[in-house]
Amino acid sequence: MIEMVAFDADDTLWHNESIFTLTQERFLALVKPFVSSENIEERLVATEIKNSKLFGYGVKAFTLSMIETAIELSEERVGARQIQEIIDAGRAMLEHPVDLLPGVAEAVVKVSETHKVMLITKGDLLDQESKIARSGLGDHFSALEIVSEKRPATYERILTRLGIAPERFLMVGNSLKSDVVPVLDIGGFGVHVPYHTTWAAERVEDEEAVRKRPRFHHIDSLAELPALLGRIDAAA
Amino acid sequence: MIEMVAFDADDTLWHNESIFTLTQERFLALVKPFVSSENIEERLVATEIKNSKLFGYGVKAFTLSMIETAIELSEERVGARQIQEIIDAGRAMLEHPVDLLPGVAEAVVKVSETHKVMLITKGDLLDQESKIARSGLGDHFSALEIVSEKRPATYERILTRLGIAPERFLMVGNSLKSDVVPVLDIGGFGVHVPYHTTWAAERVEDEEAVRKRPRFHHIDSLAELPALLGRIDAAA
Repeated sequence: MIEMVAFDADDTLWHNESIFTLTQERFLALVKPFVSSENIEERLVATEIKNSKLFGYGVKAFTLSMIETAIELSEERVGARQIQEIIDAGRAMLEHPVDLLPGVAEAVVKVSETHKVMLITKGDLLDQESKIARSGLGDHFSALEIVSEKRPATYERILTRLGIAPERFLMVGNSLKSDVVPVLDIGGFGVHVPYHTTWAAERVEDEEAVRKRPRFHHIDSLAELPALLGRIDAAA
Repeated sequence: MIEMVAFDADDTLWHNESIFTLTQERFLALVKPFVSSENIEERLVATEIKNSKLFGYGVKAFTLSMIETAIELSEERVGARQIQEIIDAGRAMLEHPVDLLPGVAEAVVKVSETHKVMLITKGDLLDQESKIARSGLGDHFSALEIVSEKRPATYERILTRLGIAPERFLMVGNSLKSDVVPVLDIGGFGVHVPYHTTWAAERVEDEEAVRKRPRFHHIDSLAELPALLGRIDAAA
């Protein structure tokens, strides 16, 4: 029987990557007049991945990476006004309303009636706390973990602290790389609920191999989670 | 008897504000040629405090505030090169070696032999985790909490989760506002160990009133903590 159901937050409970994509479009329009390069987006992703080792994930890191990319690709021709507009775009992301994905509120409430539920998410501390508060779902979660990386050791540490065996732990999220594979690796259940777009750094090389692993499950929407949990518990 | 001793990190275990001060000097030298205003530092602090509501605390927020202040005070005359240098200064802060304050390593080891110890700190998740790892002290702490604010409710939530009564909890740190007052407010012990400089946003209005409160203690260095703990436990 599953004892704890953990949810990812961004792109699992609410829209996130789509806000990054919109901001990126705003960024492209801003810097294009200063840049001859064709592959601005590619360079932005490369800067983001390079910076993540020091800056971590989240809007502040993304904003700093946008500024650096603009300066580098424009060979310092981009102006202070454009850089202020990039910061304003970052601020707009932090102030963006929390848009729950379809069926999320009902699914979280339903699962919380039969199982303990928690939230495990990456990103900026204050931003994630603010989104959880604004989502209206905060009270349903018995624990909340904002982490800098989602590696097998991250999940092991959380389960040890909560005193939960991996085989009684289920994680659901949109990222195979962060939410599913490391949980399968430690012996837990990993449920993939894809979002329509995946950030380059969250892609896995061999998706098919992941799908064949034991304790892997796939749902098209969180609305399917209560029924899936029922089947997993019945088989236990 | 005290059951859990919690340490603040920045400016309690290792130097931090002094690195911000050095970076601020580098920032002043960078922007001065573009700015007529006399009170650049004051404006930077005002921008930091305004931004903290959305950006939180830490190096990334500070870097974004430096950039905004440079753009605003220079009336957009500051160049892309200077802004890149500001980001480089932020990166240098994140890469700065962790310099433990005198007597810290010995004090943490000694206290951990008689009490459970934990760490409660504000700031960027990844930056704080990295500093804890590099400090070499990580293994001594039984728990680690990186929080977005240190309010009474923050400490209450942590103690509830750990199952510790406030009167058996002692927090030691350099900030009266964040480490001492909220812990006294919930009925715990607050030990002030001043750092030679305090960030404007961490100052309290009436320090004298804080010093007179029950369960308030003051030490000049963490080296005095084991003896203080002995006295508090003996009086219990």
